[in-house]
Amino acid sequence: MAGNTFGKLFRLTTFGESHGSAIGGIIDGCPAGLKLDFDKIELDMRRRRPGQSVIVTQRKEEDAVEFLSGIFQGVTTGTPIAFSIANTNAKSKDYSHLKDTYRPSHADYTYDAKYGIRDYRGGGRASARETAARVVAGAIAKQIMKDISITAYVSSVGNVCLDKHYTELDFDNIESNMVRCPDTKTALVMEEYIRGIRKKGDTIGGVVTCVIKNVPVGLGAPVFDKLHAKLGMAMLSINAVKGFEYGSGFAGTKMLGSAHNDRFLKDFTTETNYSGGIQGGISNGEDIYFNVAFKPVATLMQKQDLLHKEGRIVTEQGRGRHDPCVVPRAVPIVEAMAAMVLVDAWLQARTDKI
Amino acid sequence: MAGNTFGKLFRLTTFGESHGSAIGGIIDGCPAGLKLDFDKIELDMRRRRPGQSVIVTQRKEEDAVEFLSGIFQGVTTGTPIAFSIANTNAKSKDYSHLKDTYRPSHADYTYDAKYGIRDYRGGGRASARETAARVVAGAIAKQIMKDISITAYVSSVGNVCLDKHYTELDFDNIESNMVRCPDTKTALVMEEYIRGIRKKGDTIGGVVTCVIKNVPVGLGAPVFDKLHAKLGMAMLSINAVKGFEYGSGFAGTKMLGSAHNDRFLKDFTTETNYSGGIQGGISNGEDIYFNVAFKPVATLMQKQDLLHKEGRIVTEQGRGRHDPCVVPRAVPIVEAMAAMVLVDAWLQARTDKI
Amino acid sequence: MAGNTFGKLFRLTTFGESHGSAIGGIIDGCPAGLKLDFDKIELDMRRRRPGQSVIVTQRKEEDAVEFLSGIFQGVTTGTPIAFSIANTNAKSKDYSHLKDTYRPSHADYTYDAKYGIRDYRGGGRASARETAARVVAGAIAKQIMKDISITAYVSSVGNVCLDKHYTELDFDNIESNMVRCPDTKTALVMEEYIRGIRKKGDTIGGVVTCVIKNVPVGLGAPVFDKLHAKLGMAMLSINAVKGFEYGSGFAGTKMLGSAHNDRFLKDFTTETNYSGGIQGGISNGEDIYFNVAFKPVATLMQKQDLLHKEGRIVTEQGRGRHDPCVVPRAVPIVEAMAAMVLVDAWLQARTDKI
Amino acid sequence: MAGNTFGKLFRLTTFGESHGSAIGGIIDGCPAGLKLDFDKIELDMRRRRPGQSVIVTQRKEEDAVEFLSGIFQGVTTGTPIAFSIANTNAKSKDYSHLKDTYRPSHADYTYDAKYGIRDYRGGGRASARETAARVVAGAIAKQIMKDISITAYVSSVGNVCLDKHYTELDFDNIESNMVRCPDTKTALVMEEYIRGIRKKGDTIGGVVTCVIKNVPVGLGAPVFDKLHAKLGMAMLSINAVKGFEYGSGFAGTKMLGSAHNDRFLKDFTTETNYSGGIQGGISNGEDIYFNVAFKPVATLMQKQDLLHKEGRIVTEQGRGRHDPCVVPRAVPIVEAMAAMVLVDAWLQARTDKI
Repeated sequence: MAGNTFGKLFRLTTFGESHGSAIGGIIDGCPAGLKLDFDKIELDMRRRRPGQSVIVTQRKEEDAVEFLSGIFQGVTTGTPIAFSIANTNAKSKDYSHLKDTYRPSHADYTYDAKYGIRDYRGGGRASARETAARVVAGAIAKQIMKDISITAYVSSVGNVCLDKHYTELDFDNIESNMVRCPDTKTALVMEEYIRGIRKKGDTIGGVVTCVIKNVPVGLGAPVFDKLHAKLGMAMLSINAVKGFEYGSGFAGTKMLGSAHNDRFLKDFTTETNYSGGIQGGISNGEDIYFNVAFKPVATLMQKQDLLHKEGRIVTEQGRGRHDPCVVPRAVPIVEAMAAMVLVDAWLQARTDKI
Repeated sequence: MAGNTFGKLFRLTTFGESHGSAIGGIIDGCPAGLKLDFDKIELDMRRRRPGQSVIVTQRKEEDAVEFLSGIFQGVTTGTPIAFSIANTNAKSKDYSHLKDTYRPSHADYTYDAKYGIRDYRGGGRASARETAARVVAGAIAKQIMKDISITAYVSSVGNVCLDKHYTELDFDNIESNMVRCPDTKTALVMEEYIRGIRKKGDTIGGVVTCVIKNVPVGLGAPVFDKLHAKLGMAMLSINAVKGFEYGSGFAGTKMLGSAHNDRFLKDFTTETNYSGGIQGGISNGEDIYFNVAFKPVATLMQKQDLLHKEGRIVTEQGRGRHDPCVVPRAVPIVEAMAAMVLVDAWLQARTDKI
Repeated sequence: MAGNTFGKLFRLTTFGESHGSAIGGIIDGCPAGLKLDFDKIELDMRRRRPGQSVIVTQRKEEDAVEFLSGIFQGVTTGTPIAFSIANTNAKSKDYSHLKDTYRPSHADYTYDAKYGIRDYRGGGRASARETAARVVAGAIAKQIMKDISITAYVSSVGNVCLDKHYTELDFDNIESNMVRCPDTKTALVMEEYIRGIRKKGDTIGGVVTCVIKNVPVGLGAPVFDKLHAKLGMAMLSINAVKGFEYGSGFAGTKMLGSAHNDRFLKDFTTETNYSGGIQGGISNGEDIYFNVAFKPVATLMQKQDLLHKEGRIVTEQGRGRHDPCVVPRAVPIVEAMAAMVLVDAWLQARTDKI
Repeated sequence: MAGNTFGKLFRLTTFGESHGSAIGGIIDGCPAGLKLDFDKIELDMRRRRPGQSVIVTQRKEEDAVEFLSGIFQGVTTGTPIAFSIANTNAKSKDYSHLKDTYRPSHADYTYDAKYGIRDYRGGGRASARETAARVVAGAIAKQIMKDISITAYVSSVGNVCLDKHYTELDFDNIESNMVRCPDTKTALVMEEYIRGIRKKGDTIGGVVTCVIKNVPVGLGAPVFDKLHAKLGMAMLSINAVKGFEYGSGFAGTKMLGSAHNDRFLKDFTTETNYSGGIQGGISNGEDIYFNVAFKPVATLMQKQDLLHKEGRIVTEQGRGRHDPCVVPRAVPIVEAMAAMVLVDAWLQARTDKI
């Protein structure tokens, strides 16, 4: 299997199936000499954790991160940072009925077709539980570039949209509600909406917006490794993501160049920021902002048609513990992936000039 | 500079500035034994070429591809395929006024800030001329997987949208009009629209849609190298791209899971295809389709404010030869990048099972 | 820190310091569908283990390998195989005196100068204990290519040399003696020799020879990734290695071309094999054989001068548990690294032709 | 084909067959802002060039390097530096007899077996002509790290050995004789020796020694990417190389640890340097030195038995223009590969600490 490693200089390699003994990863390329704040790692892990509110899955995962190497007396030594998160709450019997059947819009069928074998318990390697390892690495990445702030929030759930530009929002409100929407009023509407959908055993998609401030000028590269291309790939690698746009995004396709161009001010900043903080693939010091589209979770608490390996349709009642809407928990994952992209570009930038 | 190489097993490394002596690239990892159809390469180059119609730039580039290695008696030998495209039509004097000034929403400023030096003539390395090399590699990649068809077309220009699903369109019409829109009526409206914008010296954005058919089941990988994540990065690495969505995309965020899930049929295909041909990062045999958002070109034929290196604003009249709308010429580039992603995944898939 | 990952398609990333909580690794790219023989892994671990005989270190490490992922019902699933080996026998107090001093010909000084921080206990990341992870991955790699046999043995210890060509030796004798020399008589001389050196608290170097049989024609690549270049890098990455030669090696520099050229026989084999089974970087089906030079271990049980951080010389008596000669235990490590190189080339070869 | 790229941050990708239209490469990752001295590049190219003296091949290659990108007004811009060297003197008819036959100890057979097709003219991609591209990149790499000096020389030809330590030699003599041996007396003996072998149409091997001075402390990495492992791989990737040893090398295997350990002096240097300037994979500031073993060239000007594809032996008289001994011309190639390894490590080191 390819592609369990993310990044070039700051690299995360993850491992683990949702119902194996543990998941985790190895961070290689973390610079030596960083005093780690473990509380910050724990905080981001709590934000991703299932069971944190009534609108997300009630599965309880302790997600205690055990660091196995790379840290000496609380400081990174530059050697690989390995960590492991035990799968203490895995209820494998919940999944035995999936041994020979494929759920719609899951990875079950493609996995089996590709590898000829799969750990069918809880999604195995395809489970979003893998993203816990990303949050650990992201929480460390965030600490490397102390000046940069990376803030993600929920900007829409189904048809409930937060119709305000990020500059009008108070990010301090994000963690004050279950949906992680910085507008308290909209947050309440979203919550009600999700509760309603949950009752019907259904699920709904949404959008996470991410804003990165205080980015130094000069991160990224102009051709294949454009900073937004790396961010896009990072986001699209998160489970359930269907789209990515930065700066003016899809709406920008409808603008005239004369309106879209960001006029320079004399201090080298720009009047507008349709560019989304990146020009020619390289950060220009303005805020980087982007949207990430999440589809509705495929696991329903309803009757559904499954495909049996032998080519017959099997109807089953969905059960288990699942999210009716994944975006509130996706917020720290989006931040983590963004942090890893930035740190990688930041280290790369050290080598670009003589 | 990082990131001039794309791909892992089928790799393209490109070189060249728009006003240097040549641009080109090296394709490494192309399997040995492929009889090349050079006409097909030439055809895709013509589709990308400036000056092909009145609604694109009138710059004339011959873009004759010279192959330097890797091909023996018309067949690939497995060794690196180097190719070079001379910059015969580069008018360097056109750009001398840009030596010390930064154009809005271009890479001028970020480049200078990052590298401390830049070839300011015609965008240098940041020029979209670099994509010619991608088209060469993509045209070869297309020939490796003969059964797969990759078709891109223009689905919107500014507010003029083609409101039809790709399954309702006749792809044979795409090359019959200047905009590369498969719906002849809409194409005419788009053309008129672009002509009007061109007259004002302005530019407009648009969307390119790409459809990939006959993809074998099992391409891609489930974690960081999800097939759609690679496609997304590929598209976002094209100049002027601001967004990417596949399958249900951003619209899918508004759907319920019960509507979005693609029910299996007994023959292992699916009734609907909101998944966009990819589940869990791996192709499922259904059509892969995605949208790519292009911003309006930043170079205007209008008066614009530039920033001088010394921090003063300079007003200049735009001149030279530029596209009022980039999407018609972007069509073959989107196809080329998609072809490279697929071939890479196709080679990788050979190593995934014992 | 760079370079904790080995391989391109079959990749091992290792982690761990000798006195942290654990060492281990992640194997990514292992093909799906391989039924693992865990006894074979255990056997190779035992061969590398300290304390197995009186002529190697008396440190006892259990080295129990715990697999955390990637294996389902005894079969590889293609997902990353993570494994961990607890550091149960780490006596950290043994090393406290090394906190501020640098031992001669160790990594102490270079580490501190480079990273500004180091885990000084037992060599930290620079400890040869890291090679246990390589043996695990190598033992799995060996099982992928069942027909290939990889056999290493000790061919010299100090001045005691086994002056026989590998074709004259009975490899079944290798594991019958403590030195892992296939010639029983020479083995006894080597053992006596090492015992004598051990009594004086001194150490001695040696050479490990490795022979690979039944290699398919066509592994390797002709330019930078020549099969022998990859083997050489693999061997030189083992602690204490100072040299590598394959086929005729250094002795071949003294031969005339007319004597050195390997004449073809009509069955596409060759009469002689000075090429060492590799021509133009690609295996030709003949036996691959090479020598690996190991320096004497730097840790002595004698008085030695250490350098204090502050620039003064400190005399100390060596203590702890160390090998007087490392080559007997290096044998399985050499095999493991060779196995990883071959599997990587074997997977790569699947992608080389159309 | 894998492996046409060397390096991680400073990367060279080469292309070309000996009898195609050109060979060359792309250097990616060269830092921006380096004022290039083109005479130094030309000088190293001349040192590698065939036909420079009577004891090397009389083939004449102009080897004029044409730079296509990445350099603006004589300064590197950070963008890829592409260069091309035309194959002006390729006499393809010389090789037509090799279309269906395999020469002993060449890459002919392995190539055909692996790829099913090959450019049989002059060795095609397996030709040592590829190393010209390495010399270009190495000559640029040397200029990046101005303080470091990299000097290679011939230390043995067949049985004629220069039995002096490098510290006893005057490197200024190296270029004063055809063999590139810094001891004028030994050089003369070597020359006579090679002339004699040439007359018989035979060839002979030899050893190139390389010494690197003024290396900063801290280049390299402690696990797989040990500095000497990278150097070893670099050297073993040069055509005809059979072995590599650094520091005490194979002779060091016969030493006691008490003699081999390099005692520290109070100024953090060492009294001896058996470590060869590298400890734990990381440079310690002492001289790095190593030996590279070259086999005798396989192409003889004698009658030889070739294998026809159909499995019969064909006797042919060797003809064409070839080196009786490759080591004099290998000297700049060894230096070039060493320079690339060092620059890569030097750039990497910028990212290792916070």
